Amino acid sequence: MKNYIKAHEWNIIEEGFDPHLNKISESIFSLGNGRMGQRANFEESYSGETLQGNYVAGVYYPDKTRVGWWKNGYPEYFAKVLNATNWIGIFITIDGVELDLAKADVTEFSRVLHMKEGYLERNFKATLQNGYEVGVKALRFCSIADDEVGAIHYQLKALNFDGQLTVTSYLDGDIKNQDSNYDEKFWDFVADADEQNACYLTLRTKKSGFEVCTGAHIAIAKNGTNQDCELQTIRSEKYIGQQFNLALAKGDEITLIKTAVILSSQNYDTSKLLNATKKSLEAAVSKGFERLFQEQQQAWAKKWQESDIVIEGDVAAQQAIRFNIFQLFQTYTGTDDRLNIGPKGFTGEKYGGSTYWDTEAYCVPFYLATAPQEVSKNLLIYRYKQLDKAIENAQKLGFTDGAALYPMVTINGEECHNEWEITFEEIHRNGAIAYAIFNYIRYTGDTEYLAQYGLEVLIAIARFWKQRINWSQAKKQYVMLGVTGPNEYENNINNNWYTNYLAVWCLKYAQESTNWVKLNQPLRHQELQHKLHFSDDEFATWQHIVENMYYPFDEAAGVYLQQDGYLDKEQVLVKDLPAEDRPLNQKWSWDRILRSCFIKQADVLQGFYFFEDDFDFDMHKRSFDFYEPRTVHESSLSPCVHSILAAKLHDEARAYEFYLRTSRLDLDDYNNDTEDGLHITSMAGTWMSVVEGFAGMRVRNNKLIFNPFVPKKWQSFSFTVGFRGATIKVNISKEQIHIVNTSNQSIALQVLDKDYQLLGNAELQISNAVLA
Amino acid sequence: MKNYIKAHEWNIIEEGFDPHLNKISESIFSLGNGRMGQRANFEESYSGETLQGNYVAGVYYPDKTRVGWWKNGYPEYFAKVLNATNWIGIFITIDGVELDLAKADVTEFSRVLHMKEGYLERNFKATLQNGYEVGVKALRFCSIADDEVGAIHYQLKALNFDGQLTVTSYLDGDIKNQDSNYDEKFWDFVADADEQNACYLTLRTKKSGFEVCTGAHIAIAKNGTNQDCELQTIRSEKYIGQQFNLALAKGDEITLIKTAVILSSQNYDTSKLLNATKKSLEAAVSKGFERLFQEQQQAWAKKWQESDIVIEGDVAAQQAIRFNIFQLFQTYTGTDDRLNIGPKGFTGEKYGGSTYWDTEAYCVPFYLATAPQEVSKNLLIYRYKQLDKAIENAQKLGFTDGAALYPMVTINGEECHNEWEITFEEIHRNGAIAYAIFNYIRYTGDTEYLAQYGLEVLIAIARFWKQRINWSQAKKQYVMLGVTGPNEYENNINNNWYTNYLAVWCLKYAQESTNWVKLNQPLRHQELQHKLHFSDDEFATWQHIVENMYYPFDEAAGVYLQQDGYLDKEQVLVKDLPAEDRPLNQKWSWDRILRSCFIKQADVLQGFYFFEDDFDFDMHKRSFDFYEPRTVHESSLSPCVHSILAAKLHDEARAYEFYLRTSRLDLDDYNNDTEDGLHITSMAGTWMSVVEGFAGMRVRNNKLIFNPFVPKKWQSFSFTVGFRGATIKVNISKEQIHIVNTSNQSIALQVLDKDYQLLGNAELQISNAVLA
Repeated sequence: MKNYIKAHEWNIIEEGFDPHLNKISESIFSLGNGRMGQRANFEESYSGETLQGNYVAGVYYPDKTRVGWWKNGYPEYFAKVLNATNWIGIFITIDGVELDLAKADVTEFSRVLHMKEGYLERNFKATLQNGYEVGVKALRFCSIADDEVGAIHYQLKALNFDGQLTVTSYLDGDIKNQDSNYDEKFWDFVADADEQNACYLTLRTKKSGFEVCTGAHIAIAKNGTNQDCELQTIRSEKYIGQQFNLALAKGDEITLIKTAVILSSQNYDTSKLLNATKKSLEAAVSKGFERLFQEQQQAWAKKWQESDIVIEGDVAAQQAIRFNIFQLFQTYTGTDDRLNIGPKGFTGEKYGGSTYWDTEAYCVPFYLATAPQEVSKNLLIYRYKQLDKAIENAQKLGFTDGAALYPMVTINGEECHNEWEITFEEIHRNGAIAYAIFNYIRYTGDTEYLAQYGLEVLIAIARFWKQRINWSQAKKQYVMLGVTGPNEYENNINNNWYTNYLAVWCLKYAQESTNWVKLNQPLRHQELQHKLHFSDDEFATWQHIVENMYYPFDEAAGVYLQQDGYLDKEQVLVKDLPAEDRPLNQKWSWDRILRSCFIKQADVLQGFYFFEDDFDFDMHKRSFDFYEPRTVHESSLSPCVHSILAAKLHDEARAYEFYLRTSRLDLDDYNNDTEDGLHITSMAGTWMSVVEGFAGMRVRNNKLIFNPFVPKKWQSFSFTVGFRGATIKVNISKEQIHIVNTSNQSIALQVLDKDYQLLGNAELQISNAVLA
Repeated sequence: MKNYIKAHEWNIIEEGFDPHLNKISESIFSLGNGRMGQRANFEESYSGETLQGNYVAGVYYPDKTRVGWWKNGYPEYFAKVLNATNWIGIFITIDGVELDLAKADVTEFSRVLHMKEGYLERNFKATLQNGYEVGVKALRFCSIADDEVGAIHYQLKALNFDGQLTVTSYLDGDIKNQDSNYDEKFWDFVADADEQNACYLTLRTKKSGFEVCTGAHIAIAKNGTNQDCELQTIRSEKYIGQQFNLALAKGDEITLIKTAVILSSQNYDTSKLLNATKKSLEAAVSKGFERLFQEQQQAWAKKWQESDIVIEGDVAAQQAIRFNIFQLFQTYTGTDDRLNIGPKGFTGEKYGGSTYWDTEAYCVPFYLATAPQEVSKNLLIYRYKQLDKAIENAQKLGFTDGAALYPMVTINGEECHNEWEITFEEIHRNGAIAYAIFNYIRYTGDTEYLAQYGLEVLIAIARFWKQRINWSQAKKQYVMLGVTGPNEYENNINNNWYTNYLAVWCLKYAQESTNWVKLNQPLRHQELQHKLHFSDDEFATWQHIVENMYYPFDEAAGVYLQQDGYLDKEQVLVKDLPAEDRPLNQKWSWDRILRSCFIKQADVLQGFYFFEDDFDFDMHKRSFDFYEPRTVHESSLSPCVHSILAAKLHDEARAYEFYLRTSRLDLDDYNNDTEDGLHITSMAGTWMSVVEGFAGMRVRNNKLIFNPFVPKKWQSFSFTVGFRGATIKVNISKEQIHIVNTSNQSIALQVLDKDYQLLGNAELQISNAVLA
C-alpha cells in the first residue's frame, strides 16, 4: 500500500522523484488508445529501475510453453502481447554528459496524468554531473482520434550554463518481453529508412510473422524559432536514430516535437507498410502538434460525456473512478473486433494473452453503458470469430460434435494457459461468454445479434456442457466433476454450484434462443439447422439435464454449497485469521490454501450476481452472510460483486467498503504489484460497484432500473449511461434523484420501483425518500 | 512392444545391429554396481542415435526448477543424478578412417549381458568406408567386488588389411544431462593429470560442489604380446586422452585393457581425491583384468546364491525374472546409507532424483528377502537421516511441532518435485515410510531398530497426519481433504481411502511403538520423550482420530470407495474402452483422464496389500472384482499388487497374467520408453509377484509362511530367500513343495497352514495337494 499520488478531481499527480516508485508510476501514468499503449517511461535516458514498455494491440508472439511436467492437452505456445519498438526515445547529452535521471540530481519533479484531456505531463529540474542545470517539461499523448499516432512535446531549458547540446531522436526495436519464457527476443529486423527529419524501422515477429513499422519525425525549435538542424542518421541493431547538435546559451530553451506513428501488418499489406507509415507520419506532422493535441482533447471530451462519473464530497474517490474509466478507454475503444481487453491492458506484460473471462463478466457491462453499442458488440464478435478455434480446443480435450470450449487465455482464439486445473477445469468461462450474449441483448435489445451470431456460439457452448456433465448412477442426477470455479482457491472440485448453475442456464438459454430464432427468423433457423444439425432429440437431452441437475445444498445453513464437501473443511472465518497470514497467496503454501475454506473471489455470489432474479432476498442474504466472512478477496475481481450484493441487501456501509477495496487498487498500489502493470479488467468492477451497486442500475423488460443510495461519505454522485439510443445523466444525492435525458431519444425507466418514460431532452426529479 | 531380445536362461542377447533399437539396448544392457552405472554405449565412436550415460551414485546437481506458474511451497531446485565423465571411450582410426558403427557396414553384431557373471560382451565385424574389415570383441563390467572399478577388455582384429591403427583411450567430462532444465552443463573442470599409461580428470559439480575424479589406465597387447607404445596426451575442454599408433598387418589382433576408477568427494577429501584415485587405479591395474573379472564373477555368484529364482518350463520368464533381480542388485547394494534406488537406477535420467516411495513399498520387501539385513536397514536409515529435512519440508507447507512430510522425490532429503497435486498432495508416501519400518521389523525381528531410529520417524510422521486430518463438523468424523492417492489419475480428492487408512494406521503404530519402547527400553523412551516432547495428551488426540476417522464406503457394492464421490463418475469398464484409446495417458487429455473412473494403479487394493489381515476374504474379493476392471495399470507398479491379490483369491490365471505385464516390461519395451532407462523399482514388483504371489510368502508371528501354486505354463519354480539368519531354497512344483535350509540356522515356517521348524541344513518335502 502506497500513498504518494496527490488527490485531484481530474488529474493523477506525482510530486518529487523517488526511483523506488518509478516502476509503479510507469504503470499508473501509462498512455494508450486501444491500438497501442506506452508505459510512462522517460523520453531521455534512464539507467535506473524501469520496465520499458510499448505494446501494439493484436500483434503477438507464440512463446513456447514453459511447463514442469507436460500433460496431454496443454497448448504448445503462449501468445503474448509484444513489447515493441520504443518510439519515445530522445537521447540527450550536453557537453558530452548524458541527461539520465538516475545519475542527475533531480528537483521539482512531477508527473501529471491529465485524464480529462488525455495526456501525460512531466516537469523536472536536473543538475548533471558537471553541474549544468536543465529544466524540462514534456507532454505526451497517444491519440485516440487517430490511433496510429503518438506525439511528444519536449522542452529543455539551459538554466545555468552555455554548452553544446546533442540530441538523438531514435526508434529502438532491440527490446525484449520481460515475460519471455526462454529469454528470447521476439523481433527480427526487416528494414529501416531515413528522410529529412524522419526515420523508420520495420520489424517482424518471429514465428507469427507480424510486421510493425514505426516512423518518427523530429522538429526542433530554439526559443520559439524553428531550427533547421542537420540530422545525422545513426544505426545499430534494430535501431535507427537522428542526431543533431545545437549550441545552448544560458536561458535558451529548445523544443523538440517528436511525432510517431505505428502501423502493423494487421491493417496493411506488408509490401505497403513502409509507404503507409510514411503517409501516416506525413499527415500527422502536417497537422502539427497543436492540432493533434486539440483532436485528442476533443475525443476525450466526447468519451467523458458518455461515461463520466462525478462524486461530490470525496476527491480521492472522484480521482479513482475517473482513473478507472480513463484506463479502460485507453485499453479498448471498440473499433476493431480482433482486439480485446488484457488484464494489464498495455501497461505491463504479466499474465500474457489478451482475453480472459473478465471481458465478458466485468467489462461488457461497463462498455454497454458507457460506449456506443458497437463497442460491446465487437467484444462479442471477437468470440464469435474464434468459435472454430474454441471447437478445436474442445476436440483436443476429447469433446466431439461441435462442442466448443473457449480458452482461458487467448489472443488469436487458441488456448495459451497451461496449468491443468485452470486450462482444463476453469470451464465456467464458457458460461460467461454465453451470459455476455444474453446480457448484451438484454441491454441493447439487439435480437438480430442472436440470429446472426449469438446462436451458433450458444449451441456450441451448450454442446460442451452436455458432454461435460455426466449422469451419476449414485445420485440419480446429473453432476459435473473436476472443475475449478471462479474461486481459484479450490481446484478440481465436484459440482461447483456456480458452474453447475451456469451450465444449466446455458442449456436453457440455447434452447430458448433457438426457439426465438425459429419463430422470428425461420430462414436463418433453417440455415443454422442445416449447418449445425441440431434437433429436437438433442434439445431433449439438454432438457433432461436441465430438469435433473444436482446442486450441492446445505439444509442447515439454507445455502447452496460452493462445491461437494465444502462443509467438510475446517470452518474458520477470515476475521479470525492472524493478520500476518495475509494475503494468503503470499504467506501460505498452495496446499494449505486449497485445503482451507477460504475463498479467493466471489463464487456462489458471482452466480447470484448473474442470476439474481432466480433467488429471493432471503437466499441472497443467507448466502452473503455465509460466504462473505469466508472470502479473502485476493482477486481484484471479487469486491465489486460483493459491493453490488451488499447494496442490494441494503448494507450500504459494506457496499462502500467493498467499493473502496478496488477503486484505488493501483493508485495506492494496494497489492504491491502495480509495477507489473495496472489491473485493467477489475477497473470495470469498480464502475459496476458505483452504477450497479450504489445506483442499483439494472435492465429488466427493456427498462433501465435504478434503486440508488448515496454512500455516507459522499454528498452526491452522478454518472452518464447510454441505453438504447438515449443518453442520460443521473445525479443521485441524499435528497433527490435527478435524471436528465441529454439525447433526443425517449427512454423507459424505473426508479425506486416506479415506471417513467423520459422523453428526449427531458428531465426527471424524484425525491430520494428511501435514503433520506 | 518389441521382441528382439533372444530368450536364454542366463543371458540377455541381441543379435544383429539395428540402429533404431540402439537406445533401447543401451538401457537394457546397462551395467552398474550400486556406486556407478554405465549405459551400454559403445567404447568406439558412434555418431548415430545414442544416449551416452554414466552416472555416479549420490552425486547430484540442484537444477533450477522449471515451472509454468509458481506456487508457494514449490522447491527451488530439482536434485538430479549426474551424467558424469565418460570413462569407456576408445577412439579408433585405421589409416585415418574412424571406426564408427553408424558409418561402417556392421555384421555379426551381438550384445550379450551375462547376468550370472555380471558382464557385458559385444562382438561385431565392421567394414569401414575404405573397405577395411575389423572384428571386435569387447567385454566390460562394473565391479561389485570393488565398486570404484570398471574394466574393459577390447580386442580388435585386422581381417583384410594392413594399416596404421591410431587409438585414443580418453576420459570425456564435457557432457550434459539430457534432462537439464535449462540446457546447462552441470560440471566445471578442476584438474587433469597424466602418467605413463594413465590419465585423470577431476570435475566439480556447479552449485553442489561435488568433485569426481576419474582415472583410466590403458594396456596394449598385439597378438598376445604386451606393447610398450608411446602415449601422447591429448587435451581439450574437460577432456583428456592418451593416444598411440600401431602398425597392423592383416590377421593381427590387438587387445586393449582399459581399467578405470571413479572416486568422488562423497568418500574422499577433495584435497586427497586425485591421490586416492591414483592409488585405487594402481591397485586395480596391478590386480589385472583377469583377477578383477574373477572377483566380479565370484561376487555375482554370491548374490545369485542368495536371490536366484529358477523357473522350469518357461525360458522367457526365467530370463525376465533374472534380469529384474540382476538390475536391482546393479542399482543398489546396500553398503551406503546415503544411497537409494532411483526409478531408472543408473540406466537413464528420466524422473530425476533417486528416492520415491517405490523404495519403501516395493524395493524393501525384495531386499529383505534376498540380501543381508543390513541392506534394507540402510534404506531405512537413509530416511532416518533425512528426518530433519522432512520436518523442514513440512514446515514450508505450514505444518508445525515436528511434523514431517517426506518428499515425493529426493536425493538429499529436500523435495524436488514440483507439481502441486503430487508434491503437496501425494502424501501417502509418508505412510509408506512408516510401513517400511513396520515391515522391516516384522521381517527381521530387529526391534532394536524401533528404539534407535524408527520411533522418531514414526512420531514425526504421526504428527503430520494429525495436522493434515481435520474434523468435519458436517460428518462429525475426521476427514482428509485434498490428496492424491497412489492412483495418480485422480488429483486433489477428498478422503482417499488408502491414504485415510494408512494415516490412521500410522497413528496407531506410532502409539504402539512408543508403548513398546517405553516397556522395553525405558531409558531410550525417556530420552526420546525429552527430545520430542510427546505426551499422553498428544496420543489421546491421535487416538480420537483413530476412533473417529471417516472412510468412504459403498453399501450397495460392499466396498470401500477410492475417494468421496467416486461413484458419481460415469462407470465404464476397461474392457469396454476402444483399443485405440489406450494407453490413456498417451491418447486422452489430462482432464478426460481425471474425470474418468479409470485407475492408473492399485489404490484401494494397495491398501489391502499392506493390511490384508484387517479384511476378510470376501472383502478382498469384492474389492478386487470391483476395482480391477476399472484399472488400466498405466503405472508399472500396479500389476504386481494385483498379481499378489489374485493369487490370494486363488485366481491363478490372472495372477500369472498380471505377472507377465511387468516381468518383461523392459526386455520387450512394452511401453515404448525403455530407451529412457529401465523401470528399476517396478522390477521389485515382479519379484513380489513370484514370491508373495505365486509362492504366497508372508511373515506373521515371526514365521515365514507359504501358500504356493505353480502357474500353469511352468513346471516348477524355485527361489532363495533369507529370513532371520537362515537361508532357504524353496522349490515349488505341481507335485510338491521342497524347502532346503542351506544355512546352519533353524527357521520357523508355515506351509499350507501347517507349522514347521526347519533345522539348519535340513530339508522339508510337502505334497502340493492343494494345487495338484
